[in-house]
Amino acid sequence: MSPIATIVVLIAMDAEAQPLIASLNLEEQKDCFMTRRAPMKCYGGVAARGARVFVVTNGTCAKHNVCNVGTVGAAIAAYDALVTLNPDVVVNAGTAGGFAKRGGAVGDVYLASTFRNFDRRIPIPRYDAYGVGEYEAIKTPNLQRELKCKIGVVCTGNSLDATETCRAALDAHEASVKEMEAAAIAHVAHLFGVPFIAVKTITDIVDGPVATQEEFLANLGTAATALKDVVPKIIDFVAGKELNEL
Amino acid sequence: MSPIATIVVLIAMDAEAQPLIASLNLEEQKDCFMTRRAPMKCYGGVAARGARVFVVTNGTCAKHNVCNVGTVGAAIAAYDALVTLNPDVVVNAGTAGGFAKRGGAVGDVYLASTFRNFDRRIPIPRYDAYGVGEYEAIKTPNLQRELKCKIGVVCTGNSLDATETCRAALDAHEASVKEMEAAAIAHVAHLFGVPFIAVKTITDIVDGPVATQEEFLANLGTAATALKDVVPKIIDFVAGKELNEL
Repeated sequence: MSPIATIVVLIAMDAEAQPLIASLNLEEQKDCFMTRRAPMKCYGGVAARGARVFVVTNGTCAKHNVCNVGTVGAAIAAYDALVTLNPDVVVNAGTAGGFAKRGGAVGDVYLASTFRNFDRRIPIPRYDAYGVGEYEAIKTPNLQRELKCKIGVVCTGNSLDATETCRAALDAHEASVKEMEAAAIAHVAHLFGVPFIAVKTITDIVDGPVATQEEFLANLGTAATALKDVVPKIIDFVAGKELNEL
Repeated sequence: MSPIATIVVLIAMDAEAQPLIASLNLEEQKDCFMTRRAPMKCYGGVAARGARVFVVTNGTCAKHNVCNVGTVGAAIAAYDALVTLNPDVVVNAGTAGGFAKRGGAVGDVYLASTFRNFDRRIPIPRYDAYGVGEYEAIKTPNLQRELKCKIGVVCTGNSLDATETCRAALDAHEASVKEMEAAAIAHVAHLFGVPFIAVKTITDIVDGPVATQEEFLANLGTAATALKDVVPKIIDFVAGKELNEL
């Protein structure tokens, strides 16, 4: 074990990341990815105890001119960032849906316990488990005490809405958080053997009365501000520590 | 325009690729990706008119010990292969589901006209189109005549089954082919500005009487053999030509 010296924070949308980037006074890093074709953006700076911190966003789709949300954009960003930035820990931060039935409310902050895909159904032996693609977050009991936040299963899928099939899968997976990237990043982090932490702030209640997209757009600014508050606390807590101190 | 000198063929599963690799007498390429952590496998050789050909498979999931099927595995493979192998054209070859209502039958060979995701529903303006993520295959009228194959819309999703919501989306997208990777590769190919062709052989009929997973497993060998027959024809036709001759 050695102290955590490089931290990569992956955030899907620029709108989620900008308050944090401004707050941490990070500077855009040019040409830091393995190809100039990479759509991602990278912002770097120095954190507590001399650790380097990089915030990477998925960037904009060249065809559709919106952020590269979802598992494909997240997998590409994670893969390239883990090769080129070689972090000691990866943090995925983002906005997400919560569940009233599990005590979630708009504005809540969750650390992930476990990651599962809820929209990859492959009913062939062993492919079924691969489809769910369960990975564990690293254990961070001290960080959890420090943040005083909730802990829960983070479930990932590529749709903002939730069909009855989705809702049944989210129930079966005991989802406290529904979002669109974390399980893809967990798969890549496992591939590289890099410890993975995810923090999600709640913009909308999946089992509430308002359609997700309306609530999401109404609360995106608030949830991005919550990220601006919580992510620096995580960086500050993690920087320079060893994994077993988290 | 210049003659096509490097062709990358992306195939998700080793079982789909092995008959082709043996038939083309390709040799495994070690350490050709940007990281030794890459799960993909690469097999290379020389095609007609001195063109280089590489077959890249998604490799095996280190945790679940099955092939990295689906959009995340395909996006990572495409992204790394396009950076490191710098092809003039990318071909995605694989097995897929067909549709009786569009004249599909087990053993059919399809060239893709268009790629669409059928399981990414994001009901926010512009994100809805990004979710579908439509891309066009390059125009290949001469290749289509040569192969005497069917042409159709290829729709991508991360589940082998199809819920009622999936079936409605597949209908709305006029899917002739349902599979798990092509739209993710189309997104990456567009990012790199590399022309993209996809060929799919039909293992199962989505709107037929037999559950997809049973039919898929029963016909995987036959469909892999069909790939072994058709992919060399595509490589031979494409190698050394200019794009406007395809």
